[in-house]
Amino acid sequence: MRRTNNKLKLTLIATSLLMLAPSAFQVMASVQPASSSIVSENTRAQKLRIEPLNWWTGMQHSQLQLMVHGENIAKAKVSVKADGVSLKGVETTENPNYLFVNLDTQGAKAQTFKLTFEQAGQPQISVAYELLKRDKGSAARQGFSNKDVIYLITPDRFANGDPTNDNQADMIEQADRSNPGGRHGGDIQGIINSLDYLADLGVTQLWINPLTENNQAEYSYHGYSVTDHYRIDPRFGSNDDYRQLAIKAKEKGIGIIADVVVNHIGSNHWWMDDLPSQDWVNRPEGALAQDSSAIDFTTHRRTTLQDPYAVAKDKRDFSHGWFVESMPDLNQEQPQLANYLIQNSIWWVEYAHLSGIREDTYSYADKDFLVDWTRAIMAEYPKFNIVGEEWTGNPITVSYWQKGKINKDGYQSELPSLMDFPLYETLIKALSEEEGWSEGMMRLYEFLANDVVYADPTQLVLFEGNHDTNRLYSLLGDNLALTKMALAYVLTSNRIPQIFYGSEILMQSPTKDRNDGITRSDFPGGWQGDAISVFDNKGLSDDQASMLNFTRSLLNFRKQADFIHSGGLRHYVPQDGVYVQMRCAKQDCSDKARLMVIYNKLDKAVELPLARYRDLLGSARAARDVISGDTVTLDKTLSIKGQGVTLLAIEEAK
Amino acid sequence: MRRTNNKLKLTLIATSLLMLAPSAFQVMASVQPASSSIVSENTRAQKLRIEPLNWWTGMQHSQLQLMVHGENIAKAKVSVKADGVSLKGVETTENPNYLFVNLDTQGAKAQTFKLTFEQAGQPQISVAYELLKRDKGSAARQGFSNKDVIYLITPDRFANGDPTNDNQADMIEQADRSNPGGRHGGDIQGIINSLDYLADLGVTQLWINPLTENNQAEYSYHGYSVTDHYRIDPRFGSNDDYRQLAIKAKEKGIGIIADVVVNHIGSNHWWMDDLPSQDWVNRPEGALAQDSSAIDFTTHRRTTLQDPYAVAKDKRDFSHGWFVESMPDLNQEQPQLANYLIQNSIWWVEYAHLSGIREDTYSYADKDFLVDWTRAIMAEYPKFNIVGEEWTGNPITVSYWQKGKINKDGYQSELPSLMDFPLYETLIKALSEEEGWSEGMMRLYEFLANDVVYADPTQLVLFEGNHDTNRLYSLLGDNLALTKMALAYVLTSNRIPQIFYGSEILMQSPTKDRNDGITRSDFPGGWQGDAISVFDNKGLSDDQASMLNFTRSLLNFRKQADFIHSGGLRHYVPQDGVYVQMRCAKQDCSDKARLMVIYNKLDKAVELPLARYRDLLGSARAARDVISGDTVTLDKTLSIKGQGVTLLAIEEAK
Repeated sequence: MRRTNNKLKLTLIATSLLMLAPSAFQVMASVQPASSSIVSENTRAQKLRIEPLNWWTGMQHSQLQLMVHGENIAKAKVSVKADGVSLKGVETTENPNYLFVNLDTQGAKAQTFKLTFEQAGQPQISVAYELLKRDKGSAARQGFSNKDVIYLITPDRFANGDPTNDNQADMIEQADRSNPGGRHGGDIQGIINSLDYLADLGVTQLWINPLTENNQAEYSYHGYSVTDHYRIDPRFGSNDDYRQLAIKAKEKGIGIIADVVVNHIGSNHWWMDDLPSQDWVNRPEGALAQDSSAIDFTTHRRTTLQDPYAVAKDKRDFSHGWFVESMPDLNQEQPQLANYLIQNSIWWVEYAHLSGIREDTYSYADKDFLVDWTRAIMAEYPKFNIVGEEWTGNPITVSYWQKGKINKDGYQSELPSLMDFPLYETLIKALSEEEGWSEGMMRLYEFLANDVVYADPTQLVLFEGNHDTNRLYSLLGDNLALTKMALAYVLTSNRIPQIFYGSEILMQSPTKDRNDGITRSDFPGGWQGDAISVFDNKGLSDDQASMLNFTRSLLNFRKQADFIHSGGLRHYVPQDGVYVQMRCAKQDCSDKARLMVIYNKLDKAVELPLARYRDLLGSARAARDVISGDTVTLDKTLSIKGQGVTLLAIEEAK
Repeated sequence: MRRTNNKLKLTLIATSLLMLAPSAFQVMASVQPASSSIVSENTRAQKLRIEPLNWWTGMQHSQLQLMVHGENIAKAKVSVKADGVSLKGVETTENPNYLFVNLDTQGAKAQTFKLTFEQAGQPQISVAYELLKRDKGSAARQGFSNKDVIYLITPDRFANGDPTNDNQADMIEQADRSNPGGRHGGDIQGIINSLDYLADLGVTQLWINPLTENNQAEYSYHGYSVTDHYRIDPRFGSNDDYRQLAIKAKEKGIGIIADVVVNHIGSNHWWMDDLPSQDWVNRPEGALAQDSSAIDFTTHRRTTLQDPYAVAKDKRDFSHGWFVESMPDLNQEQPQLANYLIQNSIWWVEYAHLSGIREDTYSYADKDFLVDWTRAIMAEYPKFNIVGEEWTGNPITVSYWQKGKINKDGYQSELPSLMDFPLYETLIKALSEEEGWSEGMMRLYEFLANDVVYADPTQLVLFEGNHDTNRLYSLLGDNLALTKMALAYVLTSNRIPQIFYGSEILMQSPTKDRNDGITRSDFPGGWQGDAISVFDNKGLSDDQASMLNFTRSLLNFRKQADFIHSGGLRHYVPQDGVYVQMRCAKQDCSDKARLMVIYNKLDKAVELPLARYRDLLGSARAARDVISGDTVTLDKTLSIKGQGVTLLAIEEAK
């Protein structure tokens, strides 16, 4: 157990007192969703739900807490018959239908063992539980890093690889491609089918919006209203499909980043029919847990958590409030829930071979829980990576949540990475506004000085857009040159870059307010019969083809570009809309290799004097244009075309 | 000496080798400007200039470097005949007309001693130099603090106490009150005459724009183009007048804060006719010091100094560039200049009984010099205070310069205080824009969370306006209620507050761009025959009288208000334009006294439920309205009038 609660009854039960019916024992061939891992002699036992669905040997944290859900199960005595797995005790809440069984797997080998539940006047229940062997190298897996390019996919909208799974008998919402806010049928098979395209594009990581079951009446496609933490939504595929995606992607050099939500659930989550405890879900002070009408909505005032002058109630009103009525806000201060969420995240990492987690609405969850959650995952996978979403344009606010930041209030986060909303917003503003004394490229230049507030700015994820933002191309006025500049900035920054599906072919959206349904439009070619298909290179406009080629060139160049992955950054005060960044393989730029990135914001050609850049160019006389492959002479001046980005690779700068 | 330069010749001269003519010795009755402290037997000696004009015994730093300026003086052998003052050596530059004499006054008593300059083929020169006894308690003087209210005066525009000094034969620019950018005749005597008014208003510190000689052809009134570091501009009065002002102000509980400029001088500074060294003034690399046409202007790109990615040349282009052609930029890396500036600042503090320094254009001077300069002053006066001007809306940038800030690049400032431009700009914006999701009072609330970037935000100086900003009342749309809200915010903030002369009577200006001449308009009543006089309470409009009364009430209340001076701050997320701050005497608000400040931005009365504030109000049932003096009942709700600020003092909150 990672958290303890003195208020809860902890009962130690001697396993020797219990008997187990041999017939109840059965090895599971593979992990299946939810309660299917339970086998016993009667139907009552079949209604038992035990989570996690299985566990593994050799985990760094050997303790495991099973959530057992069944009628009056809290009154049962539990025993374990296993080799090396010890029952440390049980915990209960005020709801008799839940029993939390604490096991220790220290030193245990892989096996299927028996859990037996015994209660006076009731038939004994036995279930098989699997302890699997971990994959080789599982703990040492490499998380996403500066070497990667992350490609964000909204799975319902990317590619429909299996139209037969679009509708499911046990799922409320049916597919309706004509509804921007409805389900369109995209699925895991669609992503599997697209792996060649993605690998060719140069993508090395896929962040996929949540795939877990969202059995909500509407807006279920986005995935942020989980209704079963251990089941892939059948309209996307099966748990095994997800694992197969990860295995196949890995063969092409692509990792999978899961989108995890610990802050809230969907209102149709099975918990909501039988809440594990009164304090499982946040309700207004004094309200009953069951009173579904008692809701305080979050104030979204995220500064309260960091503000040295904020009052306690205002902090609570931020973190304990709900997003919307259909998303009950979880109380991660509840210790069994905290354990549940931590184990669930680790389960998916281990089960589905993940290379990272993107944690949704990061700061809205309990601050202390977040430390426990992150620490527990990173303890299992020391080279793993987790990026949190803290949506604000203020780098001070974002920096609070990064590991290594020395905060005034003493809060020490364990989170390696955060989404760089501040730099994203500045990039969009800089490219879309007119040049001025402090505007345009100067804004972008000056903003980067704020990097000093971060424990490590290079570990932030910078993006050109995501499922919550309007489309880059549209925000930049349907301007191809500016869009290429933005993409180049993201991909050559001293950050971990992330792009959004469709940006490579200039997908569009309105630019005012939010337009989720349209921003997350179907990727052309992902559906049979699509008139335009990116996969088949069919029907793309010249500008789309140009952007696709630019993206592909840059991503593939980037794969081997050490000066981008690990490197130093220098930049020059912009002049007349011309902004130059220089990347070096070493932080101090003492090496010889350079990437010179020249942004020309204004639509006029420039004869750029190079003397100013000789401090880093040295005596280099030649460079290679990364996109065209042409050799460029570095003389007294360099001819730069109007509006656009020039990327020059220089091998021998000194 | 505080700085050494290996490149410079350091010559040790034995005093025993030198002879001193007894007739050259004379005790100076008092310190007089410039070269008048030099007495000798011939006219050549009378052209000698020695600075500082005098020094004091018992200084923490006992070393003293005299700048001696005279024809070929570098070739002279210098000797000292004094009791306990030792000649440690001399330093020269490439200009033979300057000699820097290093003395050590360790243990010396007060005296007038003889300095003798001897040169082959030239008459011997002897001068008297005073080592004065320090005033009792000089070193322990208390600098301005959170207990104070600083009142900024532009001396040419406040009050003309002595019309006979308006024009001076040796000063170029003559008075012309009809010219907004000209000299209007205000002077030190005018401020002396106004001390009763200021004391009654509740002011406890005067920051006066620079009073040192500015013998420039135009725009000389503002004082930022010094032409003689040791002379009060005669159009303001004499050095002694300045000292008398400090003495008389102190009698009324008012301290004097000098406005110091170490970054630049006026182009008519006497140095410019005979530069002490080639590198005394910053010039473009490769340019001759004497080439007055060779000027690089500062880029004003202040982030370069802090930016981890900025290149060296961009940093230099900020700090080495000039403001304007009429303000040569000093090179504080030059060691004798550094010493000169440090000693000059200390000289004025000691001479004129100052209680603080406001340092102009702080970051534009050399970073390392600024540390030396600040450290030297604070070493002499440990309880002194210095506030630097770093004009940016970005708190990260400002925070870099405060003592105690742990900067990424290792830079450790010694500066206790900075002008809080970021909060000032936010305050104006919050009060002048419409209320919105993140606008208005919410902007002000959320911005305060950025205080975490400061080593100590409570030591910042917050202002409602200064000589460089447009007038508060005008910026707030000539709205009296909003102007009172802004003033109340500044005066009850957890900052050191500063107000600008004339704000108490709603002085106006345009609001777009800069309007220096008008913003710094003459204070009504400061000139004989003024139709309106604040001093005589004559001709003020009702709104002006209301603002004056409000200011006076608040300033006088503030004098004894511990919960403002040393106290804790709590604030509540604004709702519908109502923003509540609570001040407590203790940081953790564990005390009983409270100041509750309620800002109602919208022009509608509010029945404010008090339950939300009971965490800090406790069971208190009564409060005193600070402005009206009325007793207010703290019941379930509080009736708040539309648009305005309510200040409630609560003595027994728990």
